[in-house]
Amino acid sequence: MREMGQRARAAARILAATPTAKKAAALHAAAVAIRRAVPQILEANAADTAAGRSNGLSAAMLDRLALDPKRIEGIAAGLDTVAGLPDPVGETIAEWTRPNGLHIARVRVPIGVVGIIFESRPNVTADAGALCLMAGNAAILRPGSEAARSAAAIHAALTEGILAEGLPADCVQLAPTTDRAFVGALLRAEGLVDLVVPRGGKGLVARVQQEARVPVLAHLDGICHVYVDRGADLAMASDIAFNAKMRRTGICGAMETLLLDRAIAAACGPLLARLCEAGCEVRVTEDLLGLDPRLVPARPEDWDTEYLDAILSVATVDGVEGAIAHIAAHGSNHTDSIVTRDAATAERFLDAVDSAIVLWNASTQFADGGEFGFGAEIGISTGRLHARGPVALEGLTTYKYKVRGSGQVRPG
Amino acid sequence: MREMGQRARAAARILAATPTAKKAAALHAAAVAIRRAVPQILEANAADTAAGRSNGLSAAMLDRLALDPKRIEGIAAGLDTVAGLPDPVGETIAEWTRPNGLHIARVRVPIGVVGIIFESRPNVTADAGALCLMAGNAAILRPGSEAARSAAAIHAALTEGILAEGLPADCVQLAPTTDRAFVGALLRAEGLVDLVVPRGGKGLVARVQQEARVPVLAHLDGICHVYVDRGADLAMASDIAFNAKMRRTGICGAMETLLLDRAIAAACGPLLARLCEAGCEVRVTEDLLGLDPRLVPARPEDWDTEYLDAILSVATVDGVEGAIAHIAAHGSNHTDSIVTRDAATAERFLDAVDSAIVLWNASTQFADGGEFGFGAEIGISTGRLHARGPVALEGLTTYKYKVRGSGQVRPG
Repeated sequence: MREMGQRARAAARILAATPTAKKAAALHAAAVAIRRAVPQILEANAADTAAGRSNGLSAAMLDRLALDPKRIEGIAAGLDTVAGLPDPVGETIAEWTRPNGLHIARVRVPIGVVGIIFESRPNVTADAGALCLMAGNAAILRPGSEAARSAAAIHAALTEGILAEGLPADCVQLAPTTDRAFVGALLRAEGLVDLVVPRGGKGLVARVQQEARVPVLAHLDGICHVYVDRGADLAMASDIAFNAKMRRTGICGAMETLLLDRAIAAACGPLLARLCEAGCEVRVTEDLLGLDPRLVPARPEDWDTEYLDAILSVATVDGVEGAIAHIAAHGSNHTDSIVTRDAATAERFLDAVDSAIVLWNASTQFADGGEFGFGAEIGISTGRLHARGPVALEGLTTYKYKVRGSGQVRPG
Repeated sequence: MREMGQRARAAARILAATPTAKKAAALHAAAVAIRRAVPQILEANAADTAAGRSNGLSAAMLDRLALDPKRIEGIAAGLDTVAGLPDPVGETIAEWTRPNGLHIARVRVPIGVVGIIFESRPNVTADAGALCLMAGNAAILRPGSEAARSAAAIHAALTEGILAEGLPADCVQLAPTTDRAFVGALLRAEGLVDLVVPRGGKGLVARVQQEARVPVLAHLDGICHVYVDRGADLAMASDIAFNAKMRRTGICGAMETLLLDRAIAAACGPLLARLCEAGCEVRVTEDLLGLDPRLVPARPEDWDTEYLDAILSVATVDGVEGAIAHIAAHGSNHTDSIVTRDAATAERFLDAVDSAIVLWNASTQFADGGEFGFGAEIGISTGRLHARGPVALEGLTTYKYKVRGSGQVRPG
């Protein structure tokens, strides 16, 4: 680990000074190499999936692990996309001149060395490696053992592109997957690793947060709410709630709890029926049970549960203040939405709900770097510092102050 | 701790929605209360210093602890200054509209609950409390036991101002100083405390970094360099080096190592003589020993030492690249300066030296929030994430995304 970290630091120094065009060219070359290596990647992936099957991996894990030519083309296209993103490095965020003539500029620079710990999705090798590289950071990638061969094959193609542009191979290093102590060493590599990003399930993220001595960009629960206010257009509310829950139930931006303003709760029968008809299990507070025979009673723990499934909890609340109080008590500071035509009520919700993303009249499923226009994302941060919400290239940078003078000394 | 944390969280919710004028009025009222409480503060401080003297506190610690009417007026004036700073909360950092019509705004919001752990300087009670409050954060202050009575007297005045404006007293809470377990609990208060700022010596900061499970805004070593390039105006170099070392030797922005371009090292005798004459012990590489009889040889550990004293290490290096390499090997990523008339050389140094603050033709002693125009500072961060360099109000905030739509749902 120490040796990999030192090599990464040396590569990071070179990358920090590498012009945008060269980083982009390396990623385009890597995309070409990925497309050329489809047979090798498929072969490696077949070995991973076969081993996974005999090791009893779940169907969901096997699906995340599996690659096909279309998914591999998606990986290559992702590299081309990242290569085309605006380079945040070198951007002057702010500048001013002091009365003594000192000119101060706050300039965006790479973070340095970023560790990525992931599980069964082999595409993270390319996605995360590319984002780190484009933001000028050296990456150390640690795939799960179930994806080891696939990750190695993708990494080989990535390295081919990096070397083709004369950049050091150490810009993106692949950690040994067999050494379980490596993750612990990575999480304690103060001075060698500047940031760790866990990409995977709750178990992984919790372990990383528990053990890490280096900063972590973590993404924990997404207990997302939609609040339907008395001022809502109920047809719009139905569309938003349906999309927020059912478009994809397994993503962190999926709605888990629907809050209905008591003033209009009785009119929400059709909305709830629509969810039931689509196969969603709808768990409601007692006062709502009469709205549809398919509704079932919610239990107290429902308000704190991220289902990531076609299950929804529904509560009545007393207006926007009731919604704000419920979200403060049970939310996860991820993404919450209000549906209303009343601008003052909406602004009160946007101000008072303490989440990374707050929406007015839009689905919570927009919680996504691509949907924000970032072109990609390394994750959605539920932490409060450094970066919040969808994180892409800019979140993988920090800044320095460049101060230009003409001989100034400090008096006093 | 749990109870204090919950009270702080509740106060933080109120503070986050408190208008600038009310926060400013509370701080002005606190300044009035401090000025009115001078006798009580002096009495408390006399008890602290008497106890400190009988407990054998060092002269330096006793000096940091001691208050007099002038220092107390400085504390009150500091509150008035912070009250006049621009409020970062609510600022729209960026905004854009997506092709689907969603309007996305990144808006600055408070971090939430900030813990401040400090030692013997009682003024931190007011300074740090005021900065937290003005940035909309609730603060939990934990003074060292040696400053307990002084901190309590200042805190009482601060609370008077807070209550006078109808804000909850829990906006700034003072932790018990006698309970040593409290610091540990504070450092592990995940979910209750969003950020901890240690304000004190290396021992305190190291302990906090070691134990903390919550994010830390830490300030470690300042091994600051001045590099005198072959293109330097040597008179300017002498003034800058002299100021960087001798203006105040005990601050983190003080130069600890002077790097001389080999090409002009022989011409730097007068510069080194000036430092010797001022009482600085100057430890040099062997090639420089002949320049002045008062020079002494440097040992290898000198390059990694933060003296915080009238001691300086001096090395010759091979041009700007040699300086960059020396700083990469021995620097602390804090503050480093180049003296040269050559713009290209200067820009190379500003780009390649990986420090929070890099200066061209100016003294390293400008590493200070006040000198940057921030009006105050909570500390100088040597971490790479969230905030780097001098940190004031803006560094005590984070952001949220406010997304305003008209019924958008996510396709696909």
